[in-house]
Amino acid sequence: MQMSDRISSGVKGLNQMLDGGFIPGTTALVSGQAGSGKTTFAMQFIYDGAKNGERGLFITLEQDKDKLIADMAAVGMNIPKVKNVTIIGGSVGEIMRFRKLVKAKLEDFLDEIQEVVCQSKSKRVVIDSINLFLMLFEAEEDKRFALLQLTSMLNRLGCTVMLTCETQENLAMSWYGFEEFVVDDVITLMNVKMDHYFKHALSVRKMRGSAHDKSIVSYEITPKGLVVYPDDVVIPG
Amino acid sequence: MQMSDRISSGVKGLNQMLDGGFIPGTTALVSGQAGSGKTTFAMQFIYDGAKNGERGLFITLEQDKDKLIADMAAVGMNIPKVKNVTIIGGSVGEIMRFRKLVKAKLEDFLDEIQEVVCQSKSKRVVIDSINLFLMLFEAEEDKRFALLQLTSMLNRLGCTVMLTCETQENLAMSWYGFEEFVVDDVITLMNVKMDHYFKHALSVRKMRGSAHDKSIVSYEITPKGLVVYPDDVVIPG
Amino acid sequence: MQMSDRISSGVKGLNQMLDGGFIPGTTALVSGQAGSGKTTFAMQFIYDGAKNGERGLFITLEQDKDKLIADMAAVGMNIPKVKNVTIIGGSVGEIMRFRKLVKAKLEDFLDEIQEVVCQSKSKRVVIDSINLFLMLFEAEEDKRFALLQLTSMLNRLGCTVMLTCETQENLAMSWYGFEEFVVDDVITLMNVKMDHYFKHALSVRKMRGSAHDKSIVSYEITPKGLVVYPDDVVIPG
Amino acid sequence: MQMSDRISSGVKGLNQMLDGGFIPGTTALVSGQAGSGKTTFAMQFIYDGAKNGERGLFITLEQDKDKLIADMAAVGMNIPKVKNVTIIGGSVGEIMRFRKLVKAKLEDFLDEIQEVVCQSKSKRVVIDSINLFLMLFEAEEDKRFALLQLTSMLNRLGCTVMLTCETQENLAMSWYGFEEFVVDDVITLMNVKMDHYFKHALSVRKMRGSAHDKSIVSYEITPKGLVVYPDDVVIPG
Amino acid sequence: MQMSDRISSGVKGLNQMLDGGFIPGTTALVSGQAGSGKTTFAMQFIYDGAKNGERGLFITLEQDKDKLIADMAAVGMNIPKVKNVTIIGGSVGEIMRFRKLVKAKLEDFLDEIQEVVCQSKSKRVVIDSINLFLMLFEAEEDKRFALLQLTSMLNRLGCTVMLTCETQENLAMSWYGFEEFVVDDVITLMNVKMDHYFKHALSVRKMRGSAHDKSIVSYEITPKGLVVYPDDVVIPG
Amino acid sequence: MQMSDRISSGVKGLNQMLDGGFIPGTTALVSGQAGSGKTTFAMQFIYDGAKNGERGLFITLEQDKDKLIADMAAVGMNIPKVKNVTIIGGSVGEIMRFRKLVKAKLEDFLDEIQEVVCQSKSKRVVIDSINLFLMLFEAEEDKRFALLQLTSMLNRLGCTVMLTCETQENLAMSWYGFEEFVVDDVITLMNVKMDHYFKHALSVRKMRGSAHDKSIVSYEITPKGLVVYPDDVVIPG
Repeated sequence: MQMSDRISSGVKGLNQMLDGGFIPGTTALVSGQAGSGKTTFAMQFIYDGAKNGERGLFITLEQDKDKLIADMAAVGMNIPKVKNVTIIGGSVGEIMRFRKLVKAKLEDFLDEIQEVVCQSKSKRVVIDSINLFLMLFEAEEDKRFALLQLTSMLNRLGCTVMLTCETQENLAMSWYGFEEFVVDDVITLMNVKMDHYFKHALSVRKMRGSAHDKSIVSYEITPKGLVVYPDDVVIPG
Repeated sequence: MQMSDRISSGVKGLNQMLDGGFIPGTTALVSGQAGSGKTTFAMQFIYDGAKNGERGLFITLEQDKDKLIADMAAVGMNIPKVKNVTIIGGSVGEIMRFRKLVKAKLEDFLDEIQEVVCQSKSKRVVIDSINLFLMLFEAEEDKRFALLQLTSMLNRLGCTVMLTCETQENLAMSWYGFEEFVVDDVITLMNVKMDHYFKHALSVRKMRGSAHDKSIVSYEITPKGLVVYPDDVVIPG
Repeated sequence: MQMSDRISSGVKGLNQMLDGGFIPGTTALVSGQAGSGKTTFAMQFIYDGAKNGERGLFITLEQDKDKLIADMAAVGMNIPKVKNVTIIGGSVGEIMRFRKLVKAKLEDFLDEIQEVVCQSKSKRVVIDSINLFLMLFEAEEDKRFALLQLTSMLNRLGCTVMLTCETQENLAMSWYGFEEFVVDDVITLMNVKMDHYFKHALSVRKMRGSAHDKSIVSYEITPKGLVVYPDDVVIPG
Repeated sequence: MQMSDRISSGVKGLNQMLDGGFIPGTTALVSGQAGSGKTTFAMQFIYDGAKNGERGLFITLEQDKDKLIADMAAVGMNIPKVKNVTIIGGSVGEIMRFRKLVKAKLEDFLDEIQEVVCQSKSKRVVIDSINLFLMLFEAEEDKRFALLQLTSMLNRLGCTVMLTCETQENLAMSWYGFEEFVVDDVITLMNVKMDHYFKHALSVRKMRGSAHDKSIVSYEITPKGLVVYPDDVVIPG
Repeated sequence: MQMSDRISSGVKGLNQMLDGGFIPGTTALVSGQAGSGKTTFAMQFIYDGAKNGERGLFITLEQDKDKLIADMAAVGMNIPKVKNVTIIGGSVGEIMRFRKLVKAKLEDFLDEIQEVVCQSKSKRVVIDSINLFLMLFEAEEDKRFALLQLTSMLNRLGCTVMLTCETQENLAMSWYGFEEFVVDDVITLMNVKMDHYFKHALSVRKMRGSAHDKSIVSYEITPKGLVVYPDDVVIPG
Repeated sequence: MQMSDRISSGVKGLNQMLDGGFIPGTTALVSGQAGSGKTTFAMQFIYDGAKNGERGLFITLEQDKDKLIADMAAVGMNIPKVKNVTIIGGSVGEIMRFRKLVKAKLEDFLDEIQEVVCQSKSKRVVIDSINLFLMLFEAEEDKRFALLQLTSMLNRLGCTVMLTCETQENLAMSWYGFEEFVVDDVITLMNVKMDHYFKHALSVRKMRGSAHDKSIVSYEITPKGLVVYPDDVVIPG
C-alpha cells in the first residue's frame, strides 16, 4: 500500500472524475441495474491493466466463461490475446463447488481465492457480481462481515479490487444497502428513463481519501467498450 | 455456439431494435403484466423458427395445451399445421408431475428437459412462464441457482432460449428482481395507462454482447400476432 | 369447447368491449374494491344465462343466501322466479364444512364441486369470491396451483367461469398478484376518486385469444343492475 | 329480516345519503383514524333507537364505561337517562375475561354475546372497535372467518349492527383490508389535512342492496353530536 | 374523576387550543420525532402542577436523571427547587430492573407504579417515553393490552396522564399505529421541513369529550420552555 | 459533568450552529449515507481535541487502521504526529474478537471499552460506525438497550461521545429509526441530488438542553477536512 500513483479505471473519460483513477489497494463498488454494463466496465478495468503488463483476476460467479469472452469481444476486448488475464468461475460445476465451500467454511474459500491471487500474481481483482457471494449468508451481519473479510484480504495482498453489484433502483448504491459502507469507492450506473427512451448515466458517489467529481454524466456502451462523457450532465427523473 | 447469424424474434418490427435478432445460444427474458401478450410473443418466436424448418420446444407450465393452440389460432398461428413445434406441459397432471420432480431433485427435471430437447432436436426453447418454475424453490439463492442451471444447460445444448416472466409493475424487469441478471437479454412489455385507456409499449432493456435500440415504442396484438412499431415512441407515466 | 358463439356477460354495454362476449370454456376474473359491485356483476352473468335457459351455478363463500337474494332483488334480479340458478355456500355451517374439506384434501372439494356442476347441468359458474378460497392455502405456490386446478376442472367440464376477486387498489388486478396470470380474462372495477366524490369505472385488462377494448369507461349500479357506458371514458387519478 | 323500513343512523344529515337509512338486519362498518369520532357516531346510532323505544347494545372493548358515558354527555347524549341502552365491556377485568374466552373457544364468546342480545332484547348492536376483537386471531383467514361468524349470528338474530374500525390512512376502509368485504355497508370518516388545519370528511363507500350518495362531504363533532353536511363537499389531498 | 376544572398543559399558548386544558383523569399522547421537544413538553406539564402545589411523577425510561435535570434547567425549569416532583427511572440499573419486572409479570410492575403514585400522592403522571415500555411485549395485541392496563390503572387512581411517543414521520400519531386509539387525547409535534430549514409545528389531533382547535400551528423551544403560537398556522409539505 | 464550556466539534463553521459546540458529557449522532464524510467528520472531532491536548479514542469497527490513517492524511489530518489519539478496532481479527465478546456477554465488551477509556484517559470518544455494533443484537429492544448502556457508560465516565450512523435516505436520522431517541444530539449529513449533481448538506436535527440552528446548509470535503458553510442554505428535493 506504499504505491502512490493512481490506477486507471480503463474507462475512457472516467479517470478525470476520479481525480486520476483509483487509489491502489482500495476497493470500488460498481453498481447498476441489468443492462447497465457492469460486466463490461469491470472487464475494462482488468483489460486496461493487462494491456500494460499488470496481471488481473476476473472472478465470475454466474456467467459462462466462453460467453463472457464472446460478449467482451463485441465491446472491443480480445481477452484470449491478452496474456495477463485469469478468469475463474463461470461453469455451473465450479459455482456449485464455491457454494459448498463458502457455506461450509468461509475461510477455506478465502484461502483458495488468496492462493489464486498469489499464483496468478494479480494486482487487479474483479468479483462479478458480489450479490451471488452475499446471497450465501443468511443474517445481514454475516453478509457484511463476509464482505469485509473478502475485501480486507484482497486489499492487504496489495490488490486493487472492483466489485460489481446489482441494484433495483437507479439511485440505489447497492442491493442490500450496506455494501457501500464497506468499500472505499462507489460508482453507480443508471438507466435513466428519459421521456421515451432509456439513457445511461453514471455518478461517483463515494471515494475515500480523495476528491472526486459529483456530477451525474452520460456514458455509452460502444463497440470499443464503455465511454464516459464527463461534460454531458444528465438530470435523472 | 459457433453460429454467427442472428436469430429472428419472429415479431414484426422488433428485429431491427435487436440489431438483427437474438444471438444464437443466448437466453432472453420477456417480461410483462397480465394481458401484455407474453405467450403470443413467445409462440411467435417458436413459430417463426418452425416455419423455416428450425425445430422448437414450447414448455407451458400452466396453460391447457388445447386452449393454448386455440388462443394462438386467434392471433394467426396455425400450430397443428406446422410440423416442427413440440409443446409439453399444460395438463394439470403433467404439471403436478413436474412439481414433484423439481422438488425431489432438480437434476432429474433438468435431465428430462434435456432429453426432450435432444429427441425433438429443438433449437429454440420457450418456458412460459418462469414464475411457476421459480416458485418451487424457497430461498432466493436456490431460485437463482436453479434458473442459472436451467438456462446454462439449454444454452450449452446450443438452444436459443426465451423465458416469459410475469411482473407487477410496468418498469419492473422481473418478478423476484434477480431474473434479469441471470439472462442475456431483457425485453419488457408494458401496459401503459394513458389518460383513459391502456396502451401496449415495449423496450429492450438489456442485450449482452450487442448494441440495441433503447427507445420505448408501441406494439399491438393483431390478428396476425404482435407487431412492434419501432418509430412510434411512447412516454410511460 | 367446440362452441363457437360468444357468451354474453349479462352486463349492458360490456359485450361490445369484449368483442361480443366471453369465449365459451374460459375463465374471467372480475376484480374490484369493496362497493364496486362485483357480486351484482357476477350474478348478472348467471342471471343472463338463466333467463335464456342456460343453467348457472353461483358459489358464494361468505354471503348469506337469503341476504344475497334480497340484495339482488334491489338491482332488478328476481332469482327465485328464474328456475335455472343454483346457489350453494352462504351459511356459516356450509362454509365451515368447505374449509375443512379444502384443508383436508383439495381433491375432495373439487370432486364435490364437479358433482354439483354435473347434477345441476350448469354451463356458467361463479365463485364469489376467490379470496376466501385462496386464503385457505399458505404457500403462494399452493394458492396458485389450487386456482389452476379449480379453473382447469371447470373449464374442462365445458363451463364458462367467472371469479370475483377483492382488491385493495384501483389499478390492481387481484389480491395476491398472481390470479390474473392464471385466468383468461381480467376485468377490473374501480372506485375512482374524482375531486369530491367516487365514480365507478371499468376496464378490460386481459382477454386471451381475442381482441378487446382497452378504454377505461364509466359504469353505474342502477335498479336494473350494472350498466356500462363504453363511450364515457374516465381518467383515473 | 322481514322488516321493510330503513333504520335511521341517528346522525343528522346522513340518512339522506343512505337512501333513508340502514337496511334492517345488515352490518355497517364505520372506519376512521383516531379523533374522527367513531365512538360518538356509533353511540348516536344506539341512542337514536333508544330514544324511540328500540333497545340497543353497545359493546366497548377498550374504553372505561364511566368515561364513555361522560364523553358522550359532552356531545349531547344523556345515556343514563335513556332506559334502553345496555353497555358491556369496558373494565380491564371484563376485557381480560373476553380475551380468554375468545382465545379458548370463539363459540363460547359468540354464545355469550347472543345471550346478552336476547336477554336485553336489543335490535341495534355496536362493537367498538372491531380491531381489538380481530387482533385476538393470528391467521388472516381466522380473523375473517371470526368476523363473518359474529356478524352472521347478530344479523340472523334480527339485529342491525354497526362496527367501528380503526384505520391508518384516510382513504383506507379498514385496518386489515378485508373487513369491508365482509360487511354490507362501509362509511369512512376522514381527517383531511387542508393547508394548515384538519377537517372532518365522510363518505359512504359501499352499501349492499341500495343506492347511495357517493360524495365526500364534511361533518363536525358538535355539542349535539356528529352532524353531516351533505352539501358541503370536500376535496381530500 | 369528580373534578370539573380543566388541567393546564403548562405550555404557553396551548390551553386555548384544548378548550381550557386537559380533562382530569384522562390520558394524553404527545408524539413527535427526535428533537421535537417531547421531554420538555412533558416536564412542563409536571412542573406547572408542581408550582401550584399539585404533586407530579415523571417516569423516565431511558434518560439519565441528572442529565434530565440539567437539560430542563436550560429550558427554564428548576426541578430541584420545586418540591413536588418525583422522578423515577433513568439509571441503567433501574431500567434493567423494570425490564425484568415487566417481562416476568406485568402486574408486578403495575403494582409498583401504583405504589409510587400513592406514596408520592401524584396527581399528574408522565411516562417518557411509552415506546420503551411497549417494546417489551412481542405481540401487538399484548402491547396494546399492556398500554390499556397502564393508563386505565393510572386514570382510575385519579391521575391525569401524559405519555410521550416517538414517531418516524411528521403526520404519524404514534410508533406502532394503535397508541392513539387507546388514549383520550393526541397532540403531535412536527419537524416540518420548510424550504431550507426545519420548523416546529403542533396539532391537536384527538380530544375525547371536548371540542378542540384543529389548526396546525408553530411552536418554539425557548429558554423558558415550549411556547405555542396558536395564530401562526403552518403548512406542512 | 460539572464542566461548563462547550466542546468544539472540530468542524469549521459548525460550532456556531451548535450554540458554541457540544455540551460536555453528551452523545452526538452523526448520520449520513455512504460518501457523506462521516468518518472524516468524526476524526476531526477527535483531532481537534488532540491538537489541544485533550486525549481521544477512535473505535473503528470496520475500516483498516492503516487505510484510515492514510485517508485522513488526504483530508489534512496527520494522525501519527498527534500524540493524543488512540485508535482501536480495524483489523479483521480484532473485529472478530469484539463480535464474540459482545455476543457472549455485552458487559464484558463494555468493561473492555471502559478500561481502554480509563487507561488512555480519553475525554472524547468516537464509535465509527454504530451500525456494526447494533447489528450484533437481534431484537430491536436489545439493540436499543445496548446502545443506551454504551452511551450511558461513556457519558458517566465524563466522555463526550460521537457516534457515526449509516443511513439509507437523506432525511433519515438513523438506520433503525430509534438511535436518534437515545442520543442527545443529531446531525444529519445529506447527499442532496440537485439537478445533475450531488451536493453535501448538513442539518442539526436535535440538541438536548441547548438552542441550535435549524437551517439546512451546505458543506464540502476539502483537503483540510469538512467545512460547513452556515450561510449557504440548501433546498433538498
